Amino acid sequence: MRILLLSGGSGKRLWPLSNDARSKQFLKVLRNEHGKLESMLQRVWRQLGKVNLADKAIVATSSSQVEMLHNQLGPYIPVVVEPEQKDTFPAIALASVYLYSVERCSLDEVVGVLPVDSFVEDHFFETIKELERGLYESSADLALLGVTPTYPSEKYGYIVPDSAMTEDFIKVSKFCEKPSEISAKRLINQQALWNCGVFGFRLKYIIQLLKRKNIPVQYDALLKYYSHLQSNSFDYEVVEKAKNIITLPYSGYWKDLGTWNTLTDEMEAQVIGNGVISNDVMKSCIVNELEIPIILIGVENVVVAASPDGLLVTDKKSSHKIKEYVSHFQDGPMYEEYWWGWRRVLEYNKKKDGTETLTEKIHLTAGKNLNYQVNGNQEVWTITEGDGILVLNDDEFSEIGTGTTLAIPDGKKYSWMAGSDMEFIVIRNGKHLMEHQRKNGRLDWNLKKPVYSKQS
Amino acid sequence: MRILLLSGGSGKRLWPLSNDARSKQFLKVLRNEHGKLESMLQRVWRQLGKVNLADKAIVATSSSQVEMLHNQLGPYIPVVVEPEQKDTFPAIALASVYLYSVERCSLDEVVGVLPVDSFVEDHFFETIKELERGLYESSADLALLGVTPTYPSEKYGYIVPDSAMTEDFIKVSKFCEKPSEISAKRLINQQALWNCGVFGFRLKYIIQLLKRKNIPVQYDALLKYYSHLQSNSFDYEVVEKAKNIITLPYSGYWKDLGTWNTLTDEMEAQVIGNGVISNDVMKSCIVNELEIPIILIGVENVVVAASPDGLLVTDKKSSHKIKEYVSHFQDGPMYEEYWWGWRRVLEYNKKKDGTETLTEKIHLTAGKNLNYQVNGNQEVWTITEGDGILVLNDDEFSEIGTGTTLAIPDGKKYSWMAGSDMEFIVIRNGKHLMEHQRKNGRLDWNLKKPVYSKQS
Repeated sequence: MRILLLSGGSGKRLWPLSNDARSKQFLKVLRNEHGKLESMLQRVWRQLGKVNLADKAIVATSSSQVEMLHNQLGPYIPVVVEPEQKDTFPAIALASVYLYSVERCSLDEVVGVLPVDSFVEDHFFETIKELERGLYESSADLALLGVTPTYPSEKYGYIVPDSAMTEDFIKVSKFCEKPSEISAKRLINQQALWNCGVFGFRLKYIIQLLKRKNIPVQYDALLKYYSHLQSNSFDYEVVEKAKNIITLPYSGYWKDLGTWNTLTDEMEAQVIGNGVISNDVMKSCIVNELEIPIILIGVENVVVAASPDGLLVTDKKSSHKIKEYVSHFQDGPMYEEYWWGWRRVLEYNKKKDGTETLTEKIHLTAGKNLNYQVNGNQEVWTITEGDGILVLNDDEFSEIGTGTTLAIPDGKKYSWMAGSDMEFIVIRNGKHLMEHQRKNGRLDWNLKKPVYSKQS
Repeated sequence: MRILLLSGGSGKRLWPLSNDARSKQFLKVLRNEHGKLESMLQRVWRQLGKVNLADKAIVATSSSQVEMLHNQLGPYIPVVVEPEQKDTFPAIALASVYLYSVERCSLDEVVGVLPVDSFVEDHFFETIKELERGLYESSADLALLGVTPTYPSEKYGYIVPDSAMTEDFIKVSKFCEKPSEISAKRLINQQALWNCGVFGFRLKYIIQLLKRKNIPVQYDALLKYYSHLQSNSFDYEVVEKAKNIITLPYSGYWKDLGTWNTLTDEMEAQVIGNGVISNDVMKSCIVNELEIPIILIGVENVVVAASPDGLLVTDKKSSHKIKEYVSHFQDGPMYEEYWWGWRRVLEYNKKKDGTETLTEKIHLTAGKNLNYQVNGNQEVWTITEGDGILVLNDDEFSEIGTGTTLAIPDGKKYSWMAGSDMEFIVIRNGKHLMEHQRKNGRLDWNLKKPVYSKQS
């Protein structure tokens, strides 16, 4: 059995901590058994490891998230990168084709698909393992993991079982999305289960389906074809049309950590980062990525989240409304993580004459380097910590350390290589600095190893 | 008649906008008739002007607030600077001695004293004017302005009238501080008034009182003697011991803008600065001095205040508790205003080896200069806007402009003079940078005009 972990999405719903460069699954706000902070991604990966599924897993993600993913799980995690962000059907198709044509998996191999933002107990993953046996023994096309409902929720989708149940596996009759409370109660009486987006299929099933649709089943070919794929969900494209579906029930804790409301319910700490909560505050929490302190007094059911991108204060139950308001603010992201470290905007100033000043702090991890072509802006780099090597025009090398300030000449190609962890303050003067960063995002920072990497 | 405006106090109760360098009276959160933001100080000064009392006023303040005061009211406002912060009795004594021995006011001159944080209607100031006539016609030692109570408040002090009232003026029998609601109701039935801290006296009364206490009544002598004065309130030292006190009633709006609760009640705008409030938010407001946006969703009766010093989220009614929690945080102030402009800390980093990096943005107003002696730290100044003159060691002059970066050599005495409004990013590397700034505060920045000011 192979596992496909879906780790996409831009995650504006956890603004200001999530942004285009950092999705919710990367936020370290949960705690592991040893009290150490971990992200949703790290938690799921740790739980997969417990049932020996981590080394059978691949991750489907977008290019902007690859660096963070490798930062959090290590550099050797197999990743399938979507050429562009589409919905779950194209992502699952691409990963399946990768397993089939690159990893040469058997067509009988079972693939278990799970989203990264489920907060569940460990034995959830034992049930995932059972999807394999279920598919083999039932000859079903799809096997869904169904969560035993604990209340008649109006927010979830329900898996309705066939009234004529088989002995071992529950055959699915139909699906019911977000029913009213009365309908939900009736569904629960019919033994319906919550659909948590976890399912399995034999590779053969998807490959044949793709062939029928004339979609390439060779990885390189599908990458090229990817832009032609329709942006449909796997539910719509496959599940709703499948004839032969079974479901395996899971009885235990399950929650989708999609909003500040559900996420903070699972946070053990009331304060993450620099902050203090007064004694009379109830059921509230602070998640502060800024260096300045936050003081929270006298409120109830409030989430305060702060990052260099902005600040959110919300009543827990209303936190899903964040998406409506984030679009008001176009700047940022003010903080981004990369494979070589991170950058944070300290100050941005648009002047009357149209020119801009952008002051950034840059952290370059020991042994890493960055490569960047100057675009005619004035740039001043001051090293505030660590030491390393500056390369100008590929061939001029100089050793640099704390306290050094360098004005980079226009048009010079340059790079830094960190001997120890380095920090820089960079001041840029020019035009369209923020717009440039926003439009081009991380592309501005060349991901290729620079030519002198042989020096290391 | 002369007016003494008391503008002291460090004002931690409006943290994070108020700090040791910026008291609550300077915060521009109110609006004048034309919708322009103004501070409590500017509002009171404007109201004094309407009844022709502004040009009769002097301001008692501490040295750390003189610059802000002149920034907000103009450079020619007469100011009496307390050599050190004490309570209201020493401050009023010093100002009285100034009027007597420096401005040579008549001993019969009436001095009206008022705090800067009263939010009142314009005709409040007409009543202040009447204190003069009251003192002359009644021969009382003190005349207090009493506010007609609108409810039996337990938070205020009450002025209790003598049951045998004189014809024109109400003679004061006694005072009652923060009574229970039942007592307050009884006091209101006895025609008691709220004590709003506004009162008048003839100069003679205070000068004689100081002489009896062997306190110098010459300004220079009292400045030297100031550290020996006990830190007592004027209420305790004078009012409670006075025999012959009258009170003049004021019927109208009065509020002490001492907490976020009372202050935000008087703010017309729900959002000051970069922020947005969702439709379902009730009776809440944002005061944001940061550049990053604040989003407020689904709450009620909440104040969000943000500055480079930190972030406060508080239920309105609980906002007075802020003092208990501010002491948790020792850093800052991260933003300070000076006579020459302002400085803001962008980033502070204490490294493992004990050295520190402090990155600041500095704004130097056109025509102003600053003078600073380097203390052996590495400093890099980058001009991001404007142009001016750099002076090194008093005699080396060079013209500088946007884009220039200068590393100031250790031990060099240097200064900048701004031709146009200038902005700098300054990066310091060294030890005890933040501690130094905190301990010495603004003294670090030499307030004297530098030697080359003749150049301007």
